Amino acid sequence: MTAPLTMMLAAHGDMRGVSAVTIGIDIERGRERLHHLLQRADDKALAEFLEETPPADLAEMMAALSETRRRQIFQALDTEAGARVLETMTYEAQYETIRTLPRPLAAGILGRMSPDDLADLLGALGHPRAEEVLALIPKEAAGIRQLMQYPEDSAGGIMTLGVVAVPSHLTAERAVAHVRKAASQAETVYYIYVKDDGGRLVGVLSLRDLVLAPPDARVADLAITNVISVHVDAHQIEVARLFERYDLLALPVVDDGGHLLGIVTVDDVIDVIQEETTRDFARLGGQQPLEEPYLGARVLSLVRKRIGWLLLLFVAQSLTGNILAAYESSLQAVIALSFFVPLLIGTAGNAGSQAATLLVRAMGIGEVSWQDFGRVVGREMLVAATLGSVLAAVAFVWATLFTRDAGVGLTVGLAVLAVILVASTIGAALPMVVTRFGLDPAVASAPLVTTITDASGLLIYFSVASWVLGV
Amino acid sequence: MTAPLTMMLAAHGDMRGVSAVTIGIDIERGRERLHHLLQRADDKALAEFLEETPPADLAEMMAALSETRRRQIFQALDTEAGARVLETMTYEAQYETIRTLPRPLAAGILGRMSPDDLADLLGALGHPRAEEVLALIPKEAAGIRQLMQYPEDSAGGIMTLGVVAVPSHLTAERAVAHVRKAASQAETVYYIYVKDDGGRLVGVLSLRDLVLAPPDARVADLAITNVISVHVDAHQIEVARLFERYDLLALPVVDDGGHLLGIVTVDDVIDVIQEETTRDFARLGGQQPLEEPYLGARVLSLVRKRIGWLLLLFVAQSLTGNILAAYESSLQAVIALSFFVPLLIGTAGNAGSQAATLLVRAMGIGEVSWQDFGRVVGREMLVAATLGSVLAAVAFVWATLFTRDAGVGLTVGLAVLAVILVASTIGAALPMVVTRFGLDPAVASAPLVTTITDASGLLIYFSVASWVLGV
Repeated sequence: MTAPLTMMLAAHGDMRGVSAVTIGIDIERGRERLHHLLQRADDKALAEFLEETPPADLAEMMAALSETRRRQIFQALDTEAGARVLETMTYEAQYETIRTLPRPLAAGILGRMSPDDLADLLGALGHPRAEEVLALIPKEAAGIRQLMQYPEDSAGGIMTLGVVAVPSHLTAERAVAHVRKAASQAETVYYIYVKDDGGRLVGVLSLRDLVLAPPDARVADLAITNVISVHVDAHQIEVARLFERYDLLALPVVDDGGHLLGIVTVDDVIDVIQEETTRDFARLGGQQPLEEPYLGARVLSLVRKRIGWLLLLFVAQSLTGNILAAYESSLQAVIALSFFVPLLIGTAGNAGSQAATLLVRAMGIGEVSWQDFGRVVGREMLVAATLGSVLAAVAFVWATLFTRDAGVGLTVGLAVLAVILVASTIGAALPMVVTRFGLDPAVASAPLVTTITDASGLLIYFSVASWVLGV
Repeated sequence: MTAPLTMMLAAHGDMRGVSAVTIGIDIERGRERLHHLLQRADDKALAEFLEETPPADLAEMMAALSETRRRQIFQALDTEAGARVLETMTYEAQYETIRTLPRPLAAGILGRMSPDDLADLLGALGHPRAEEVLALIPKEAAGIRQLMQYPEDSAGGIMTLGVVAVPSHLTAERAVAHVRKAASQAETVYYIYVKDDGGRLVGVLSLRDLVLAPPDARVADLAITNVISVHVDAHQIEVARLFERYDLLALPVVDDGGHLLGIVTVDDVIDVIQEETTRDFARLGGQQPLEEPYLGARVLSLVRKRIGWLLLLFVAQSLTGNILAAYESSLQAVIALSFFVPLLIGTAGNAGSQAATLLVRAMGIGEVSWQDFGRVVGREMLVAATLGSVLAAVAFVWATLFTRDAGVGLTVGLAVLAVILVASTIGAALPMVVTRFGLDPAVASAPLVTTITDASGLLIYFSVASWVLGV
């Protein structure tokens, strides 16, 4: 998530506490300073500036610069920082940058990228170009190829290979030495994992515990033995849930044999949660998720993401035309009936959307599962009965006054009660049912629910009408 | 987020990689074992079991147990684990537990709770009961009272006081000793903050850097000096964005003078993101956010959260009745016109919801801000024109065949194009406008957009009709 921070802050209504220190560094001022330094070609001052600028900010300042300028910056950056900056760019931009840099520098930066991000990049670049990049880093290539086998949204796809594991028989002192040696390759040493001679994960302890432990204590005795880990094939949503539940900073990833393959770090998990949430929002809005940021997306790809659902819903909704046509005689008899059609189906849609969004979220975070189906539907019908009664009363009074016809008023009132009952039940049940079929509950979107409730709402309305008014 | 993990997994369609090792520990088996140990009153075995069971799992196993059993467990737990277990309970349950435990034990556990959670608890308990609890921990009371001043959704409200800061003039060796001493109180020592003699935050370095540094290096030289921090009054959304942007594990919180007050840790940030997302979902569904988990909420509180919006939208929507009544003559002249009313306003609603949810998310994560208003509306109109043309063609053909009246077909077709244009624009603009007024963009929900587009859709429809059909 690399939108300009200033934007991010501006985007939020509540602007309390926005200050230079909050933002860490002023992007605009930084951009000017950077531009100035590049022109003066003052390498020392430039190096200093780059040294103290966080990569995320630097990447943002570089966005506007020419390719030459960018190359100049990458050459001045140490490879570590260069890797961080590169990771914030789009896949295409990363590839272009890598190609334009001197091979040794490109290789150095690639070697510093976190393997999971590198694997995602190569996956996105596709075969010929991926090979071209891998050729630059023969040493790491094998590991990256291994990572590329895992689906992007699996534990394997978001894990990194840099993990510090010590044999269980070491003493704390020797373990610290071991860590010190391994630390340079590892992405995080906040947890030290313990493995047996077979390479199976058997324990975990924090660097803190290790540092604070008596030097001669044995690792096996210091470690927590029932270490929480995740299978390499697990879905990233499951990974995120483990982080939330156990307040983890890193989660070891294992194969069927319990061998330690890598770790997922918490910063990747925050990205996963945001990615999944964005996907849910798109589906709730009745459209395909957008891969790129909204303003970055081409108009045509926005169209492509929306046209499918819109057409499908349109066709489904055209059914309402047939229903109304079927009741043409009733409409001609009491034209006033048609006045309340939008109100009625609108209310049904709103009640349905309320139930649907509530359940989509409840299922998304695992508060509710298929086992609760009966309970959920039961509560929703109770809620709907209460909401429906209130609105029915309002509808009766309003429709009666509006048409000076208590019969129509009664029809509308009863219909409102009935449609709210039906719509809420459908809205609550649909997310659970689609999940039951292995789909994302979020496909049970407000538009879908509304469309379904429109047709049923009309049928109810006219049945009530013929019953009350005999038309 | 403390829903049972088993549920959480079941809730997700994709069940790849669910396994004992994934879940860390089998809750059901654990519950039986726990029950067995409690009955056998085998203190040693119980202590061992508690030792190796993660607090989140333990809390879940305890949920069903009697108060006596629970007390028995808390007495067997060490205070650290006890605090973690307590933190997973509802505020009421926490209070009950604290009251039923022996005072010294309760005090010990409270002393181990992270201050931010404790402050939230006391805030929720309200004055008399909060004082009662604070009386148990006179030593910590002052700090907790301080935390309680900050709004729950501010940096101050989610920060913790346990933070390790070393004076900038120390050597790495002496700093490590300093950290070792301070570590016991600190919630995290993953970052070591550096302060000047005035207590102002002047730098940061990781424990890793400190441990791996030459013993005689000066902290001031090892530290990164432009440390990213957040103002104590900043909103928690802003805090979350800083964590995402800079991949932080902890973020120092400072006052106006730049003095270090505490830190926010990444585990709290994950909770913040989930909390804010849940709130967005509720608003997108046109309702007030629910404070408690869905299945835990009483039916009446579910009603209270929904009735307001539903009534408001109902009243707004009743306007459509007046519009239709105003065009009664047109309806009587061409009854077929009424057949397409639900289809038309339904399509408008769907197009509007698509644009609204897309923009709500884009603003929520800061991809889009008020400055982009013109650009956004421009793109949406382009998208809508494309979508509208396609659907208009379909609508024209379908309506013509359906009514055998090209005039009606043309009316419906043109109306569809027009309403999609209007609805998409409203849907895109509304989230930006409400944000402009300091509201959460998510209040521009699908139901609200649909309701607004219903009325405008009808007006467009009948204007087109009178123009094409002269009715």
